[in-house]
Amino acid sequence: MKNIYLFGAGITEGDASQQNVLGGKGANLAEMSNLNIPVPPGFTIPTHICNDFLKNKSLSNNIIKSIDVAIKKIENNVDKKFDCNTNPLLLSVRSGARISMPGMMETVLNIGLTDKTIPALINQTNNPKFVYDSYRRLLMMYSDVVMDKAENKNHVNIREKLEAILDKQKKLKKVYNDYELDVSDLKILISKFKKSIKRNLGKEFPDSAKEQIRGAIEAVFKSWNGKRAQQYRKIENIPDDWGTAVNIQCMVFGNLGKSSGTGVAFTRNPSTGENNLYGEWLNNAQGEDVVAGIRTPMPINDISKSDYSKNKKTLQNEFPQIYNELLNNKAILEKHYKEMQDVEFTIENGKLWMLQTRTGKRTGEAAIRIAIEMNKERFINQKQVIDRITPKNLDEIMHTKVDPIEEKNNKPIAVGLPASPGGASGRIVFNANDAEKWHKLRKKVILVRHETSPEDVQGMHVSEAIITAKGGMTSHAALVARGWGKPCIVGCSKLNIDLKNKFVIINNKKYKQGDWFTVNSSKGLIYDKKISLVKSNFFDNIYFKKLMDITDKIKKLKIRTNADNPKDANLSKKLGAEGIGLCRTEHMFFEKSRIRNVQKMILSNDSKSRKKAIMKLLPYQKNDFYKILKTMSPNPVTIRLLDPPLHEFLPSQKNQKLINSLANDMGVSNKVIVNRIIDLFEINPMLGHRGCRLSISFPEISEMQVEAILLASLKLLDEGYNPKPEIMIPLVSSVNEFKYQKELIKKIVNKIQKKHNAKVNYKIGTMIELPRACLTARDIAKEADFFSFGTNDLTQTTFGFSRDDIGSFIQNYFDNNIFKEDPFKTIDTKGVGQLIKLGVENGRSAKPNLKIGICGEHGGDPKSIKFCGEIDLNYVSCSPYRIPIARLSAAKNCIVEHKKK
Amino acid sequence: MKNIYLFGAGITEGDASQQNVLGGKGANLAEMSNLNIPVPPGFTIPTHICNDFLKNKSLSNNIIKSIDVAIKKIENNVDKKFDCNTNPLLLSVRSGARISMPGMMETVLNIGLTDKTIPALINQTNNPKFVYDSYRRLLMMYSDVVMDKAENKNHVNIREKLEAILDKQKKLKKVYNDYELDVSDLKILISKFKKSIKRNLGKEFPDSAKEQIRGAIEAVFKSWNGKRAQQYRKIENIPDDWGTAVNIQCMVFGNLGKSSGTGVAFTRNPSTGENNLYGEWLNNAQGEDVVAGIRTPMPINDISKSDYSKNKKTLQNEFPQIYNELLNNKAILEKHYKEMQDVEFTIENGKLWMLQTRTGKRTGEAAIRIAIEMNKERFINQKQVIDRITPKNLDEIMHTKVDPIEEKNNKPIAVGLPASPGGASGRIVFNANDAEKWHKLRKKVILVRHETSPEDVQGMHVSEAIITAKGGMTSHAALVARGWGKPCIVGCSKLNIDLKNKFVIINNKKYKQGDWFTVNSSKGLIYDKKISLVKSNFFDNIYFKKLMDITDKIKKLKIRTNADNPKDANLSKKLGAEGIGLCRTEHMFFEKSRIRNVQKMILSNDSKSRKKAIMKLLPYQKNDFYKILKTMSPNPVTIRLLDPPLHEFLPSQKNQKLINSLANDMGVSNKVIVNRIIDLFEINPMLGHRGCRLSISFPEISEMQVEAILLASLKLLDEGYNPKPEIMIPLVSSVNEFKYQKELIKKIVNKIQKKHNAKVNYKIGTMIELPRACLTARDIAKEADFFSFGTNDLTQTTFGFSRDDIGSFIQNYFDNNIFKEDPFKTIDTKGVGQLIKLGVENGRSAKPNLKIGICGEHGGDPKSIKFCGEIDLNYVSCSPYRIPIARLSAAKNCIVEHKKK
Repeated sequence: MKNIYLFGAGITEGDASQQNVLGGKGANLAEMSNLNIPVPPGFTIPTHICNDFLKNKSLSNNIIKSIDVAIKKIENNVDKKFDCNTNPLLLSVRSGARISMPGMMETVLNIGLTDKTIPALINQTNNPKFVYDSYRRLLMMYSDVVMDKAENKNHVNIREKLEAILDKQKKLKKVYNDYELDVSDLKILISKFKKSIKRNLGKEFPDSAKEQIRGAIEAVFKSWNGKRAQQYRKIENIPDDWGTAVNIQCMVFGNLGKSSGTGVAFTRNPSTGENNLYGEWLNNAQGEDVVAGIRTPMPINDISKSDYSKNKKTLQNEFPQIYNELLNNKAILEKHYKEMQDVEFTIENGKLWMLQTRTGKRTGEAAIRIAIEMNKERFINQKQVIDRITPKNLDEIMHTKVDPIEEKNNKPIAVGLPASPGGASGRIVFNANDAEKWHKLRKKVILVRHETSPEDVQGMHVSEAIITAKGGMTSHAALVARGWGKPCIVGCSKLNIDLKNKFVIINNKKYKQGDWFTVNSSKGLIYDKKISLVKSNFFDNIYFKKLMDITDKIKKLKIRTNADNPKDANLSKKLGAEGIGLCRTEHMFFEKSRIRNVQKMILSNDSKSRKKAIMKLLPYQKNDFYKILKTMSPNPVTIRLLDPPLHEFLPSQKNQKLINSLANDMGVSNKVIVNRIIDLFEINPMLGHRGCRLSISFPEISEMQVEAILLASLKLLDEGYNPKPEIMIPLVSSVNEFKYQKELIKKIVNKIQKKHNAKVNYKIGTMIELPRACLTARDIAKEADFFSFGTNDLTQTTFGFSRDDIGSFIQNYFDNNIFKEDPFKTIDTKGVGQLIKLGVENGRSAKPNLKIGICGEHGGDPKSIKFCGEIDLNYVSCSPYRIPIARLSAAKNCIVEHKKK
Repeated sequence: MKNIYLFGAGITEGDASQQNVLGGKGANLAEMSNLNIPVPPGFTIPTHICNDFLKNKSLSNNIIKSIDVAIKKIENNVDKKFDCNTNPLLLSVRSGARISMPGMMETVLNIGLTDKTIPALINQTNNPKFVYDSYRRLLMMYSDVVMDKAENKNHVNIREKLEAILDKQKKLKKVYNDYELDVSDLKILISKFKKSIKRNLGKEFPDSAKEQIRGAIEAVFKSWNGKRAQQYRKIENIPDDWGTAVNIQCMVFGNLGKSSGTGVAFTRNPSTGENNLYGEWLNNAQGEDVVAGIRTPMPINDISKSDYSKNKKTLQNEFPQIYNELLNNKAILEKHYKEMQDVEFTIENGKLWMLQTRTGKRTGEAAIRIAIEMNKERFINQKQVIDRITPKNLDEIMHTKVDPIEEKNNKPIAVGLPASPGGASGRIVFNANDAEKWHKLRKKVILVRHETSPEDVQGMHVSEAIITAKGGMTSHAALVARGWGKPCIVGCSKLNIDLKNKFVIINNKKYKQGDWFTVNSSKGLIYDKKISLVKSNFFDNIYFKKLMDITDKIKKLKIRTNADNPKDANLSKKLGAEGIGLCRTEHMFFEKSRIRNVQKMILSNDSKSRKKAIMKLLPYQKNDFYKILKTMSPNPVTIRLLDPPLHEFLPSQKNQKLINSLANDMGVSNKVIVNRIIDLFEINPMLGHRGCRLSISFPEISEMQVEAILLASLKLLDEGYNPKPEIMIPLVSSVNEFKYQKELIKKIVNKIQKKHNAKVNYKIGTMIELPRACLTARDIAKEADFFSFGTNDLTQTTFGFSRDDIGSFIQNYFDNNIFKEDPFKTIDTKGVGQLIKLGVENGRSAKPNLKIGICGEHGGDPKSIKFCGEIDLNYVSCSPYRIPIARLSAAKNCIVEHKKK
């Protein structure tokens, strides 16, 4: 492997396929150069050198020599000389890992400015302000990145100290922007900066170009193991041994004056996906000014304007030719990369230089629209569409929003940039630590900051939303939040934050830590109260619909839903459910008009009076099933017979009023009722008298339910529908339980079919939700028409975890790295999954075409759906709002190509 | 296969090896004949004919012809003729299944008596009383067995009606015994019997010898499917398709007068095992009189006398020559069969005939003594000793007895025959139905009856003890109870029972249903109160000791015990424990002097104050472990770290007094305590914050426990002992939990070893008690020194059954044949066993020599121990009193020959 890869310097040695070696930034700089897009010449030190450096703690002589040679080649290419007192070349040093880690990695600009080169540059540019501004920037960046963070064990935050000096000077001169300072101000600043550096860091700022370049390169390598980079890698699951590349590039200057500038742009709108250049720029500034969110930038074009920025100057107007060049580059890059790009550019004295291109982060909405449109534009095929859209994208577009009706009645207290759409409520906190603390106490928080930095990543992660007073759409907060699909509002300048005393003043009103805020981050609005949140109306999104159509063409797994009422059944149908995989019946028992009869049944002492009470529910249940079966016809509906323990239906022992009324109604004493409640109390109800055990003890219940299912189906058959009820017996641990229940069900079915002289297309199957059911699935499959894995209960019993009680210790498990994932969210393939596989193999060994599905919460989890595909299930069943994600995940199962990381 | 097997009729076609074909009785009649022991000639219809008959509902012509031919051969042999009006042959018909089913099957004697043959027999015997008595018996038996039970669908219990007539006649004649009736009485009875039969059964008693013999044979076959036989088979697990054979034999008469008689005997004492003939006889009677318990029989010799029968005449005195012949037969039979025999005999005019021999039922005590002595006598080898002794035998000798001290202070209200030894207390009930009903309500009952019959079997099964007013040591009640090892007193004539009104009068005192009785059935004593029961002192039984010595020579599995205090540790050592497999530590926390500190620890808010509270327990725990490790040294002691959820240690929320005191002590408000109690409440504690989860959250607990174990071990090492603590981490579901805990333990161990500059021989292993632990056992085994299967919890999670709550439905499971066995008693090999096997295979695949044991309740269950042997575990651990059974079972695992059923 080479030590150095040149680009743009007459020769270009890399290309976009070499991301693993050159990092994303380096590979794409080479690729742009290959595409004849103007890139300042430079070279990349590849990632393996980073690993060597971190191992050996120093750069080898060999590398140092290579760097010198490469700089020579740049010097020749641009006809300038590094560390030269007549025609000096300045360099930038930027990190660049395999995948973009926004704001995580380091950059040092203007390297090569020394007492020796400064006069030469002034002489050459005739622009002392530019030169001193560049030097002031070098001092700030270098002292921060190299001298403080990389080399100083006890960080003093030199940057903050220098910025305080800068702010003081601006206040003194009564100016708002950095560029309003004049040469004398800058000279004062430079002098004060150098003193502060010496005082705080114990050594002089190096007045040697060679020392600067080497310090910067080493600092970038060291930053790979910095705390903030490690944290980000942990969250994003990036391996530690990837390392970062370093890009050394000839400086071009956006701060050369009014005909210079800098900007960032997305080739399509990263919020909506609209096919328009979308971005921000700053006149007479260096790139860091935009990205770091220190100055609030201007819209690149009219389309990029928001309410907040509608009066600002656009690049389109100010530099129409440059803007057109940018549009041209957009076209070249998109055609080449087949992807929306996030670019950085600098205008130096009217010439456009591209400094970076990379795949642009985007909202879910944008991701879907871009993929669908790029498919239409024949950039990508349908499989690539599926490959490109993540479940997170879908999750995001279906994210909660602030209830629009309720929102109308409230006045926002502030407006900011809508950096990441959605809606959220939470208690405000003012630092990441508090966010984490409160989150552990199960409180919802909204993080309010001046701006965020990589140090805040974990606190941001646990917050419902993020609000910052400064920064733009491409600020750290915006990028990170958008990546997570988390609501975020940035640049909300009305916020007057007191970090120390933990309050914020908005319009003279003080809000302290713990107060409720609600954000509508799709519009950038902030409210000072809790407002209800509602699901977004993604139904009307035509790109969403097209995406869903594509999933159906590709996927093999059927997607069913868990629904136990006609409303949810309807909703799920709209979302693409191909049947109901789990229709619980217990909720039907709780309705006000019914519960009394359920209670009477439970309190009855003999089969006859139990039967009498339960049969009062028959017309209700029949109607329930009628409506649901009708909605889903001709798709199947899996109806689970009553599952929960009976005590769940009785009043609490303390509810004297209800007990009185029940006793009166039944003509028994209160004591009888209370005794029965005590009698039915269970120490471990999860493992108690429930599921099929219930129905073995009290067959009247399932008899009534089966009768209701049959009567409803017969009625629908009469009306020309095609109902397909699948009767599911819950909590089976042995085939004998199943057989016993099956006989009981068949008896009722036969009786009713005979009476009505008609046949219903029904099945009898079982929930596989206990380890023993998996282990003995061969026997059970001989008797059952279908299996449905109840992975919630199966996870409980396989781990011995009560879902209701796990909260008291699971956080310890995460904290101590005992668990990486919550097994109730993603199937534990190693343990629970092993049992499921056994269940499938055992079941199919007896009945090769056995229909098998899954109906636990995992049915809507992408990783779990991948597993379900691998073990060849027929369907997954999930809650209605997870259906789109399930459809997408099922389609992804069928795509061979996987995105390279 | 043949249709007929002759015996004793000049030719004998079968032998003892043909039990499956000839039934036990038939095979042994043939064998006795082969041994030249006098047996009345006859033939056996084999069992497969029974199956044919039950299938075809009739005897084939072929069979009928064969029967006729066989009868001819008997006629020739004895020089008499069946259905002959000059020299009539009478026959008996008896059932005989493969294994003895006492009192379950049918017998008809005196077949062939008709109006045609009666005069001839009178003429021949010159004994009209004998002839009419025999005829009266035929009428009673035949009408009962053939006409009522076998042929009449609506049983009228004709026998009871005829017995009422007999009783009435005896009262009229003021006699007590049947044989005191004279010829005229018998003639009256015969006439009344015939009328009653006609009236009640709708047809005449058949006056045809041929019809009688055929009816009797068919009735025996039909009786195989009678309700009482089916019930017995279900209890004893006898397959339905075995069928019964029928034995047709020439009648010999014990009721021919004073020089005739009948009796039953055991070749050794069935209660104690003593090597002496033990039995009962009746003068001038037929065999049924003894077995049916209608007349209370006399002891066969002085040794067979009890307090109750000490003044009765013995066979030894009355017929010394016959008695010697019997002794001679005992010797022949025992030498031949190598087993204690249960024989029936009849003396006809001074000649001894053997009617039956079979392996005699015996108490556990007798079984052990007989086996050990027969080994000494070189009848059987040590493996045969092990093969012959059942876990039930051992269970029985270790059975509870009435506390002898308490018993001394009480006077028995009645004395009966000590039919099956032991001691029991319970509420008296007067029929089998009530026994079952009360048992279901979890009440202990003692069944009090005049005599028991097969219809009572289920009620007897659920009773603590059985008392009958009539019958002898071989009566139905005695045989059945002895087989089960259940205390039983028979022939207690003082009892004056009113079945209808459910009371019994004893010595003019009335005891009604529900009153408490206690029985000492080893002595036949009945007390009218609840007396404490104690474990029997089987320690002193030399035969038990010898048996245990033999087990140790043969078995491979190690036997450990579950003990958590020095007393139990000592006891278990005495019983042969080779270590402690489960030393729970929670009980140690409950002691009065400690619980307050445990509570303080739980109520502490931070690690420091938790640590402070828990460390107060260190000296106690150290002392606990010191004593236990010392007792077991050099055997290993597996100590389980604290397992139960913390709320178990807190007072109930309602216990105001305790809460007040605790709050005072801790200087907090009651509310703080109550809130913490509420906080710790769990919905499913079995699946909650317990086991290693506890220690992951609160490492202070296991840190203290490990320190205590180490300090105790170091002290013992100082004192020259060889302690082997094995630290066991409970409830592990993933290797990460184990590793986390192991590191914590090692840290403490290293710290203490370093401080004391000494090394303890310790291990760190885990309880495998969750399905996931079995599934991922390979990973866990890489880290663990040993596995111990916690089959209680594993059964709970595999089935999803809470042991605490299963009571509400498991009875339904048994009633409906869904479960044959309680999975908490015997390992469910199909499901739970599959997981255990997986766990063993996975574990050993990573660590071939991994030490694996089991420490659930199943460790003391013979069937489960067999399974543990099959899957090659290293040890089982059980409660101290199960150790002998575990040792025996482990030895049985190593015996290849298995008893034929």
